[in-house]
Amino acid sequence: MADRFGHILCITSFGESHGPSVGVVIEGLPPAFPIDLEHIHRELQRRRPGQSKLTTQRNEGDDFKIVSGVFEGYSTGAPICILIPNNNQNSSDYDHLKNVYRPGHADRVYDQKYGIRDHNGGGRSSARITAGWVAAGSIAKQFIQHVAQIKIQSVVSKIHHLEVNDIYHLDWQKAEDNIVRCPDPEMAEMMIQYIDSIKNEGDSVGGIISTKIENCPLGLGEPVFDKLNAEIGKAILSINAVKGIEFGAGFAATDMKGSEHNDTPVGGSNNEGGITGGISNGKTITFNTAFKPVSSISKSQKSIDKDGNEIELKIEGRHDPCVLPRAVPIVEAMTALVIADHWLMNLKNQIMTQI
Amino acid sequence: MADRFGHILCITSFGESHGPSVGVVIEGLPPAFPIDLEHIHRELQRRRPGQSKLTTQRNEGDDFKIVSGVFEGYSTGAPICILIPNNNQNSSDYDHLKNVYRPGHADRVYDQKYGIRDHNGGGRSSARITAGWVAAGSIAKQFIQHVAQIKIQSVVSKIHHLEVNDIYHLDWQKAEDNIVRCPDPEMAEMMIQYIDSIKNEGDSVGGIISTKIENCPLGLGEPVFDKLNAEIGKAILSINAVKGIEFGAGFAATDMKGSEHNDTPVGGSNNEGGITGGISNGKTITFNTAFKPVSSISKSQKSIDKDGNEIELKIEGRHDPCVLPRAVPIVEAMTALVIADHWLMNLKNQIMTQI
Amino acid sequence: MADRFGHILCITSFGESHGPSVGVVIEGLPPAFPIDLEHIHRELQRRRPGQSKLTTQRNEGDDFKIVSGVFEGYSTGAPICILIPNNNQNSSDYDHLKNVYRPGHADRVYDQKYGIRDHNGGGRSSARITAGWVAAGSIAKQFIQHVAQIKIQSVVSKIHHLEVNDIYHLDWQKAEDNIVRCPDPEMAEMMIQYIDSIKNEGDSVGGIISTKIENCPLGLGEPVFDKLNAEIGKAILSINAVKGIEFGAGFAATDMKGSEHNDTPVGGSNNEGGITGGISNGKTITFNTAFKPVSSISKSQKSIDKDGNEIELKIEGRHDPCVLPRAVPIVEAMTALVIADHWLMNLKNQIMTQI
Amino acid sequence: MADRFGHILCITSFGESHGPSVGVVIEGLPPAFPIDLEHIHRELQRRRPGQSKLTTQRNEGDDFKIVSGVFEGYSTGAPICILIPNNNQNSSDYDHLKNVYRPGHADRVYDQKYGIRDHNGGGRSSARITAGWVAAGSIAKQFIQHVAQIKIQSVVSKIHHLEVNDIYHLDWQKAEDNIVRCPDPEMAEMMIQYIDSIKNEGDSVGGIISTKIENCPLGLGEPVFDKLNAEIGKAILSINAVKGIEFGAGFAATDMKGSEHNDTPVGGSNNEGGITGGISNGKTITFNTAFKPVSSISKSQKSIDKDGNEIELKIEGRHDPCVLPRAVPIVEAMTALVIADHWLMNLKNQIMTQI
Repeated sequence: MADRFGHILCITSFGESHGPSVGVVIEGLPPAFPIDLEHIHRELQRRRPGQSKLTTQRNEGDDFKIVSGVFEGYSTGAPICILIPNNNQNSSDYDHLKNVYRPGHADRVYDQKYGIRDHNGGGRSSARITAGWVAAGSIAKQFIQHVAQIKIQSVVSKIHHLEVNDIYHLDWQKAEDNIVRCPDPEMAEMMIQYIDSIKNEGDSVGGIISTKIENCPLGLGEPVFDKLNAEIGKAILSINAVKGIEFGAGFAATDMKGSEHNDTPVGGSNNEGGITGGISNGKTITFNTAFKPVSSISKSQKSIDKDGNEIELKIEGRHDPCVLPRAVPIVEAMTALVIADHWLMNLKNQIMTQI
Repeated sequence: MADRFGHILCITSFGESHGPSVGVVIEGLPPAFPIDLEHIHRELQRRRPGQSKLTTQRNEGDDFKIVSGVFEGYSTGAPICILIPNNNQNSSDYDHLKNVYRPGHADRVYDQKYGIRDHNGGGRSSARITAGWVAAGSIAKQFIQHVAQIKIQSVVSKIHHLEVNDIYHLDWQKAEDNIVRCPDPEMAEMMIQYIDSIKNEGDSVGGIISTKIENCPLGLGEPVFDKLNAEIGKAILSINAVKGIEFGAGFAATDMKGSEHNDTPVGGSNNEGGITGGISNGKTITFNTAFKPVSSISKSQKSIDKDGNEIELKIEGRHDPCVLPRAVPIVEAMTALVIADHWLMNLKNQIMTQI
Repeated sequence: MADRFGHILCITSFGESHGPSVGVVIEGLPPAFPIDLEHIHRELQRRRPGQSKLTTQRNEGDDFKIVSGVFEGYSTGAPICILIPNNNQNSSDYDHLKNVYRPGHADRVYDQKYGIRDHNGGGRSSARITAGWVAAGSIAKQFIQHVAQIKIQSVVSKIHHLEVNDIYHLDWQKAEDNIVRCPDPEMAEMMIQYIDSIKNEGDSVGGIISTKIENCPLGLGEPVFDKLNAEIGKAILSINAVKGIEFGAGFAATDMKGSEHNDTPVGGSNNEGGITGGISNGKTITFNTAFKPVSSISKSQKSIDKDGNEIELKIEGRHDPCVLPRAVPIVEAMTALVIADHWLMNLKNQIMTQI
Repeated sequence: MADRFGHILCITSFGESHGPSVGVVIEGLPPAFPIDLEHIHRELQRRRPGQSKLTTQRNEGDDFKIVSGVFEGYSTGAPICILIPNNNQNSSDYDHLKNVYRPGHADRVYDQKYGIRDHNGGGRSSARITAGWVAAGSIAKQFIQHVAQIKIQSVVSKIHHLEVNDIYHLDWQKAEDNIVRCPDPEMAEMMIQYIDSIKNEGDSVGGIISTKIENCPLGLGEPVFDKLNAEIGKAILSINAVKGIEFGAGFAATDMKGSEHNDTPVGGSNNEGGITGGISNGKTITFNTAFKPVSSISKSQKSIDKDGNEIELKIEGRHDPCVLPRAVPIVEAMTALVIADHWLMNLKNQIMTQI
């Protein structure tokens, strides 16, 4: 419970923002799978801070160390533990936040739920821990590409009021060409300028990340409580700052009649977003994820301290004015973990036709 | 996997639409809890077909039978199996659908995933199986009301283009006074008329159900992968026809700046929807669920049969033109199961201060 | 937790001795598997009371009803719920045991753990609930026979002081020819007479059941915490009255030196009992299970009542003087469930060589 | 699955014998619990090689590093990752064993199950990984001592033919005074001499470890599939070289009649070994564990290589002639993890009397 995700392919997350390392243990990856370390490295680079002017300039290393489960470049079937050491361990930068509850952050709920809290850099609630998820997700991506040529990509489709039209019909190859990871180059430029201006205001913005799973075979997803959309939903809602998710036409489906919304089983429209009755139907799977604006802003805010006194708070330091460009690989990673897990869960359904 | 939901309080769902019974096994309910059978009955009544002119007139019994785990009116700590017999077992009404794939339904994906399918009334993919969830959810509701006075209510806030403004500030007591379960009486009247007209068109509509969890204590939810929003998200996305979920300001949060969105830890706004960092923060928890229009419509549609031939399909029989009024108790039930489970999961966190 | 067993193939047990039914939900059986109902019936017959003079003459029906998950004789991949109705529901035969704690029974621990107890016929702690396990185990047996020709058989090898020598080298076909289920006909006759005499004394005896898993493919079992022996161990120790289990040479291995005990990887001795490092090694898997004497005896015993007063207790009614003949199919069933589960768990390990 | 153990308090094991580290992630420990690092250190010392002339003289460090989940000496409720670095990483000592299958070892089954094997020092199948379990078990021990004054101790009661009579009635305080960990000083001396002679023969021996759980409250253990004995059984059978387990009178119970075996609910005999119907009954819990002789011996043995050729094998290097003295803390650790887990699982059963 709590720190584990997945059924057959399963990760256990551990670590705090300013402890020695964050990390992850990956169980259930089939043996004899060749692991591309360079791929893990690239994915961590896409998540790391300081990669562009849009992100926090905080220095976080992106080195990783495989502790177990890989032998001469191949998975052995044993659990793979990956450590990502923290650079700024034991920081005293956060002493002033020890007795203060930042709005939008988990400070107060942790303190009251657990009676104790590692306040350094957000401790366990820091998005720093998603580095481990991205490393694990890289392996999951490699796996589903290898065994079934499944391809997952996420892009930024909305930043505050700047929203791309018809996002699923653009050429997503272009998304990685700009620092905001939006496949519409003109919109990307506007987004970059807007985020820059927000940063100068000492404020923050959120937006929407859109995701496509291409070439997903028909049949992934369990029919009742582990529906593919329910599992992706849980995975994505586990990411810090996510406030909503919708599949296919999503909330817009509420404006349609059945005769407009219904996709034919093959070809035609894809209002379902590639999942019917919780099971992938062979079309491209599509979903949108809403991120709230980053909670840490340098503008002065009202809050309370540990004793319940009202305070005025300005959060110093270097924050992301917008987390979406860095969240793109996190969304992809969590999605990849779900797809790989369900691909493995589905193996048993073919048994009777194979024997 | 697949048919189970929950950690400590856990349900296992079983049954098909036209088998002898649908049912549920509830594990983990603490012993010596008094179970109100009348409450279960009322909740099943709220879900059952034929309750109003807005719902299918199909005859489904709503009797239930407790097979185990209850002794002289109290839970014993043993698993509680509840059976809800099906009236129209072994129907031949569905013979014409045996080799036909209905748009929006799981017919084709089941056939291809499993190589076999109980096609009667949707078999395992029928929403009929949610009757078991509602029975289990009734017990969960009773439990969280008893131990922590937590109250869950869902209402219809949007039907197609008819959307209530500021839904969370209305008096929700009024929702159960009308057959569409909308707390705004005038809007309710318009919704009823609109659904009626859609029914006459042989079409269907979807909409939004809004949910409030009142009096939820601070501290429910696990901080990483079993975040309260992630768990509710998974629970709700398990319900047939759900295409999206958003917490608090949700997708609208993407239009706000951090300085606008951030709630102070106590009092003031509730853009977070009562959950911070995955943990309930003591404010009312709020979320919206998007339902697509019902897939079964009597209007003629294009589809394919089992052999891949294009066909023209008119789905005969009595369908719900709009599933939302009947889905209200299902959303509440799944929410109650999550809250009860997390209330039990949280028990261990108080140990060190109690010993 | 608690009432579930298994990982991919998983059963959830429910029901009390004198409730409407005992039952089981089986999840994870691959779809399109033909289920032989007659096989289930035969296995239940082997477990049922009243089958011979050695067992209790109590009347328990052995009818069963499949509620879900089977369509036209084949599994659908959906959960299979099996109900086994109880004949003597709502009995008042047990009223005198309401406030009395029987030695060797769970009466007192249930009362104190849960604060409430269904005392009729042992309630949830009755061995009656193993009827559901036997039904599920029958399906598991059919499955592993079908997919991998694995064969499981258990026999009685010891009753009190009457112990068969070299049990694994006898012809086990003969075991089902006598009512005690011992493959040595002469010893069987002595056992039958001895149990008969014990019954007349108003006492009870225990003994050892030996089990063979033949044709188990190399590679079943997980290497660390789900070792095949650990999983079988847990399964068998879940059966009422079991007090010990040993694999291969077992406790006798403690009298050997390494040079005597070590099996060569292929051929030769089988002191390991077919499992090395937690994984089946291709040889026949063998283990012995120790059953204590039945706790219910008609001889007078000292005990206490609910208020802690010492009492003299004679348990009236018809008890098994020796449970082993009826426990044979239960041991086989639990073993079959473990093997089927691990066969499914092992599917993923062949992926890289198949793609 | 596979590398995880436990329900609420749960460990995930990772690491190979000659990788950078072995380790463990502990989830579910309640927050604000003070962790005594010195206690972990002492337990690891009891398990480490080279501690006496009876154990392998191989050099294994016993340093450990807490990576996460502990803040200023207290648990935070977050997962605790503990690393135990390996000293002799990347050894080439094992090159000659790459293509050879050692009798009694998992070499061949790993190779065939996974198609790949880290052969260095046994890789994942090495008992080296139990160092992580001992570290986790130390924390579990501290916890159950703190919250419920439960005390677990294991001792050596048999080495080959040298068996202590009436082991549960000796003064177990004396066990840690000698290097074989037997509470009978004279027998201990004989055991030490015997093991020494076996070592000189180039052979090995096994034996029995007996365990007591004192002051265990009535009510731990789940009544059906997570019976306390079934859970302890699984935990103990997960330890390398264990071939059997028995509770209370165990296999000797098969020689008793019911009238002899039955314990009264309070006081008197303890043939049940402190567990009735799967639930602790308030008496001392007792069980015996059978260990086979160590598989690695320097005497020449017949075996096969990877290509199936018969070979003559002498395993060079420093092996334990008898693993039992070092296995004592491993048995205690696994037992402590089960008891702590079940203590937490039992919390919910008191709810209705507390509210």
